[in-house]
Amino acid sequence: MTQIESALKGIITDQMKEAAAHEGIEASALLKLIASGKAVIPFNKNRKAKHAVAVGKDLLVKINANIGTSPKNCDIDYEMKKLHAAISAGAEAVMDLSIGGDVKEMRRRFMEECTVATGCVPAYSVITKCKGNLSEMKEKDFIDAVYADAEWGIDFATVHCGITMSAAEKASSRIMGITSRGGSIISKWMKYHKKENPFFTHFDEICAIAKEFDLTLSLGDALRPGGGADAGDSAQMSELSNLGELTLIAREKGVQVMVEGPGHVPLHLIENQIKEADRVCHGAPFFVLGPLVTDSAPGYDHITGAIGGALAGMHGAAFLCYLTPAEHLRLPSVDDVVEGVIASKIAAHAANIAKGIPSARVKDEVFSKARRDFDWGKMFELAIDPVKARKYREGSTHSNEKECSMCGEFCAMKEEFGAD
Amino acid sequence: MTQIESALKGIITDQMKEAAAHEGIEASALLKLIASGKAVIPFNKNRKAKHAVAVGKDLLVKINANIGTSPKNCDIDYEMKKLHAAISAGAEAVMDLSIGGDVKEMRRRFMEECTVATGCVPAYSVITKCKGNLSEMKEKDFIDAVYADAEWGIDFATVHCGITMSAAEKASSRIMGITSRGGSIISKWMKYHKKENPFFTHFDEICAIAKEFDLTLSLGDALRPGGGADAGDSAQMSELSNLGELTLIAREKGVQVMVEGPGHVPLHLIENQIKEADRVCHGAPFFVLGPLVTDSAPGYDHITGAIGGALAGMHGAAFLCYLTPAEHLRLPSVDDVVEGVIASKIAAHAANIAKGIPSARVKDEVFSKARRDFDWGKMFELAIDPVKARKYREGSTHSNEKECSMCGEFCAMKEEFGAD
Repeated sequence: MTQIESALKGIITDQMKEAAAHEGIEASALLKLIASGKAVIPFNKNRKAKHAVAVGKDLLVKINANIGTSPKNCDIDYEMKKLHAAISAGAEAVMDLSIGGDVKEMRRRFMEECTVATGCVPAYSVITKCKGNLSEMKEKDFIDAVYADAEWGIDFATVHCGITMSAAEKASSRIMGITSRGGSIISKWMKYHKKENPFFTHFDEICAIAKEFDLTLSLGDALRPGGGADAGDSAQMSELSNLGELTLIAREKGVQVMVEGPGHVPLHLIENQIKEADRVCHGAPFFVLGPLVTDSAPGYDHITGAIGGALAGMHGAAFLCYLTPAEHLRLPSVDDVVEGVIASKIAAHAANIAKGIPSARVKDEVFSKARRDFDWGKMFELAIDPVKARKYREGSTHSNEKECSMCGEFCAMKEEFGAD
Repeated sequence: MTQIESALKGIITDQMKEAAAHEGIEASALLKLIASGKAVIPFNKNRKAKHAVAVGKDLLVKINANIGTSPKNCDIDYEMKKLHAAISAGAEAVMDLSIGGDVKEMRRRFMEECTVATGCVPAYSVITKCKGNLSEMKEKDFIDAVYADAEWGIDFATVHCGITMSAAEKASSRIMGITSRGGSIISKWMKYHKKENPFFTHFDEICAIAKEFDLTLSLGDALRPGGGADAGDSAQMSELSNLGELTLIAREKGVQVMVEGPGHVPLHLIENQIKEADRVCHGAPFFVLGPLVTDSAPGYDHITGAIGGALAGMHGAAFLCYLTPAEHLRLPSVDDVVEGVIASKIAAHAANIAKGIPSARVKDEVFSKARRDFDWGKMFELAIDPVKARKYREGSTHSNEKECSMCGEFCAMKEEFGAD
C-alpha cells in the first residue's frame, strides 16, 4: 500500500510516525492530512531511505535543492560534494537533474549517497538518452523513463503532465515563452510529432507505476512564467487547471501527489497565486521554485527567491525549491549550493513563524534570549548557518563577550554604558 | 522657506523638479504630496547637495545605508570607502552613525564626500561628547546636538522624540528590552535624571531648528522591537502614537517629517504594522530598518531584512534602511556594505514592481527580453549588480553566447536543441 492508501485505511505507518515526530504533531493528525491528500510523504518502497519527511501546507515548510550534471559540466565527484553540502546546510530533499556525462553513474552515486528525500525529472532521461533528437523520442520512452526512475528508488518525480497542445499554444504570446526545461522538451515534442503530451495521454499508466513504488508524483509546471510580466497568464492558468484535474485522478488511484508552481511572480501576485493553486489543486502540497520577485538581479536569485518563497510559504506553499546565486548564469558551485539552501531555509523559517508553528516561534524566542544574554555559544548553536555567524564574529577582533563591535561600549543591551 | 512651506504656497522648487524628474512624475504632483506631508525632500539649506531625492509612499522606494566609526573601529579612510561603495551600489542616502575616534573629522569628510542625502543621529553626538557619562548629559546638549548637525548641512536627522517615561516603562516586560542605541541613551538618561525625554519636552525648539535649515526630522523608533516576539507590543505602539502626534505638530510648523519603524517583525505582522503606522502617523513617509523576519539568521540579516523590506515596501514603507551580513555580529566591511545595499535595492525594486510603478515594471520587462534574446551585454547593463552578474557568467567557462551552462545544448529558450 502507498502512504495515502494506508492513511485512508487508518493505518499509521512507520514513516508517518517519524514524519509526525519531526513536525511535533500526533501521527494521527498527519494521517488525516495524508488521507485527504493535503500532505505527502515522498518515500519510495524500493529505497532504503534514512528519513521520512512529510510535505504539506499545515506542516513545516520544507526545502529542496537541485544538483546535477550538464553537457559541459559532468564531474560526478563535484556533484556529490554539492549533494552533501546541501544536506549539511539543511535541505530536506535533493533532486538529481543531470543531463550530461554518465547520467547512470551519477544516478547510482546519488541514490547511494543521498540521505534525504530524492527527486528527479523523467523527461530529462528521455532527452539525454535521445541526445535531444525529437524524432527518436517515442511516447513509450516517457513512460519508461518514469518506470526507470521509480525503480531506482526515487521518492518524487516531476511529471510534466499538464502541458497540453492547447495550453502550450497559449504561451506563444509571452515575452519569455516556455522556460521550463521539461516543458520545452514536451512542447517541442508535441509540435514535432503533432501528438498530445504522452504524460497527459498516458497518465493512467504513470499512476500505476507511481502506485507500485509509492513514487510521489510532482505534477510539473511546464508553463510556469519565465519572467514577471508573464505571471498568471492563460497558459499558466490553463496548465494549472489540468494539474488540478490530474491531482484528483491520481489520488483516486492511491497515488501521492504534489503540484509544482512558479517561477517568476511579482510580489503583489504571490498571495493570490498560492491561494488559487491551493483551491484549483484541491489542497495538494504546492512546490514552488522561488518565486522570484524580480528578473533584474542575476547573481542574487537566492535573495529574489527567498523574498518570494517566504511570502509563498506564509500563504500556503509547502515546499520551496532553492535558487542559488548562479541561477540564470551558470551551474552552481558548492558555495552557491550552500548559499541557496541557507537563503531558502531563512524563507521557510520566516514562513513557519508567520504560520504560527510553535517550534519555529520558540526557536526564534530562544535565539532572542541568547542574544539578549550575549550567549554567543548558544547563538552559534541555533543559527541557521553557524559557520558564517561564527566566522563574522571572529573576524571582528572584538574581545569583549558582552558587546559587539557595532556599538562597543555604548551597546544598547547593557545596563550601563561602558560596563561589562 | 522649507520644501513643505513652498509646496503649501504652490511654489515648485528646483529640488521638487529634480526629484519629480527622477520619479518620472510631474513636479506639480510631487508638490501636492509634499504639501500634504506624504512626501519629503531631505535637503538641508546649508548644504550644496548634488541631488535632491523625494521619499514617500507613492514614490519609488528609496534605500539608506549606514556607515560610521565605533569606539574600537575608527579608521575614517575605511569609512569613506564604505561611503563610496554604498553610493556606487545605489544607496539614495547615507547616515553617519559614528560614535568612536575623531567624530568631527569623520563628519567633515562625510559631508565633503557624500553625494547623496545625508543623515545622522544627534543622540550619538551627545553620548560621544559625554563619553557615555549620564550625569554630564544636560537637556541642552540634546538640543544643541540637533543644531550642530543641522549646521553641518545634514539633510535628515533621527530624533528620538517619541520615547516618554511611560512608554519606556512598557518595555520592561520585553524579551529584548530596548535595542535602539539612541533609545537606550534616552531611556537611561530619563531614569538617571528622573526627567522626561528632552527631545519630547523640547520638541518645539527642535522644530524651530529644523525649519531654519530645512532639516527633515526622522522621528526615531527608540522602542522598536529587538526580537520578533516583542513586535507590536504596547511599548512600540505607544511610542508610535506619540510620533503620530509630533508629526502633526512639526508639519504645522513647516517642518518636513518622516517616521522610523521596526526592526524585528515576523512576516505575518508586517502588512498590518505598516498600514497602522501610515494611519497613526497621518501618511508621513515611513522609514524602516528591515524589518527582519527572523532572529535566527546572523550572517544573513541582509536577506532577513530584504524579505521584510520588500513586503513593507509593497504595503507602503517609503524608505528602507539597509542591513548587512554583519548586523548583530560586528561592524560591516566594505564588502558587507555592498551586499547590504544590493539586497535592499532588490527589496525596493520588488516593492516598486508590486506597487505598479511604471519604470520598475518596464525595467523588468526589458530585462526579461534581454534574457530571452541572450543579450548578455544588455543584461549586465540592467542588472542590479552588474559586477557580480558578469563575474558569475565569466566564471562559467561556457563559451556559447546563446545558452548558459545550466542547460547547455538543451536550453529551453532555444528553438531547437543543439542549435545556436
